[in-house]
This record gives sequence, C-alpha cells and structure tokens, in this order.
Amino acid sequence: MKAIRIDHIGIAVEKEGVWETIAEILGIRPSEKQKVESEGISVRFLKIGDTRIELLYPEDENSTVKKFIEKRGPGIHHIAIEVEDLEKCVKELREKGFSTVGEKPVTGAEGYRAIFIHPKSTQGVLLELIEK
Amino acid sequence: MKAIRIDHIGIAVEKEGVWETIAEILGIRPSEKQKVESEGISVRFLKIGDTRIELLYPEDENSTVKKFIEKRGPGIHHIAIEVEDLEKCVKELREKGFSTVGEKPVTGAEGYRAIFIHPKSTQGVLLELIEK
Repeated sequence: MKAIRIDHIGIAVEKEGVWETIAEILGIRPSEKQKVESEGISVRFLKIGDTRIELLYPEDENSTVKKFIEKRGPGIHHIAIEVEDLEKCVKELREKGFSTVGEKPVTGAEGYRAIFIHPKSTQGVLLELIEK
Repeated sequence: MKAIRIDHIGIAVEKEGVWETIAEILGIRPSEKQKVESEGISVRFLKIGDTRIELLYPEDENSTVKKFIEKRGPGIHHIAIEVEDLEKCVKELREKGFSTVGEKPVTGAEGYRAIFIHPKSTQGVLLELIEK
C-alpha cells in the first residue's frame, strides 16, 4: 500500500481570470471548465508535471466551496493523494484516530472513489484520498 | 517558458507526529528534519510522485510560519512551482498586476532561486516560483 502521487491541489476561487492569467504566463493550458452538479461548483484543471491544480468555482450559494470562501476567503482548499488500496488506508488511519468526512469512500465526478480526511485530525489540511 | 512541476506543497505544522503517521500509513518515508536558520523553522519532506510535501515546523517565535499558525491555525501554507526562466515569469506577472514578496528572487535553503507571489494577488494562495 502506498501513495502514488498527488493527484491534485484544490484552490477555491472567487474571481475568475486570475489563475487563468497565471497559467498563461507559466505556459499551462487550462482544461475546459466543467460543472460538478452534486457539489454546486465548476472546476478547471491546470496540469503541471504529474499533478494538477483544480480550480474550484462556486456556482451555488450552498456549496461547501462558497461557504469556505465566505469564512476564510479564497485560497488552497484541499490536497488529494492517489493511493493504492484506499480501504486499507482508511482503516489504518481510523485506527490511529483520524476522522473521515462521511463513513465510506464515494465515487466522485471523475469516476474514481474518494474520501476526505477531516482537517481537525490532519493539522488543518483537508486531505482527499483517492483510488483510480 | 513553462511550469515544469509542482516542486512542493508547504504545510505549517503545530504538532509533530501527525503527518509522520500519515506518511507511515501511506508508505512514504519522511526525510530527516533539517533546520532552516534563516527562516526560524525546521523542515521535513515527504516525496510523493514527482512532487513533495514540505512540513514546516516553527522553531522561533518570530518566524513567519509561527505567525501563520497563530493567525490561521496549522494547515497548507504555500505551493511552489518549478519554472523555466524565473526572471521572465516574474516580469510578466508584474506587468499583469501581480505583486511579489520582496523585489528579487533569493537563493533558498536548497540552493535554488525563488520568489513568492503575494496571496493578495493570487486569490489567497502564497505561490512560490523557483528555478533550479
């Protein structure tokens, strides 16, 4: 069982265009913006090396990303690590006292299974673990 | 000119051992902890794919990492992107209205040149650009 790579770093964005400009200057071509209806957001990816920045744009007043921005301002929202054997990772983390958001991994927008580890148990980092 | 990879994600850590436990469960061997006297911190790296998590432990009451934790709690502190032609990137970012922390890139602990882009101009993300 091991971490394969950082799949993405999620950034909660308030104002469109800022990270698109950074991407242009750094020579990164952003993906098309796509809606994630279940989360009330749109996302756009910036591929860099073997990982990606995931720009999170709130589309719904009740989305968790909108609430995050209202509370803390825009900024880095979470990091996602791709792992082998997600179930075993989650079991071992729970045994060591880490809490998850929700009981079980769920299938996300891109079709892989994922679960969030609560920032209260990770020194303030919303940590997503995914298995492809 | 282009972004080569995400060199690291810096996490400001208040309590030692938490991310070391996560690393153990995910099968990542942490680097030795090393002091960065100029910053008043120690750091430890967790290599994952072609990037790294940089754990930042404040060692000095006046370190910016200590102040970050006092203000916002522990959590993700910055992301660092390795680029080609750092000077040109910085020049183009300035022309588009982005602000830097300090005037010029400085040589960091690992011997590469780096400059921070201020979070006020990047939607709340302290963005380090480095050239190796």
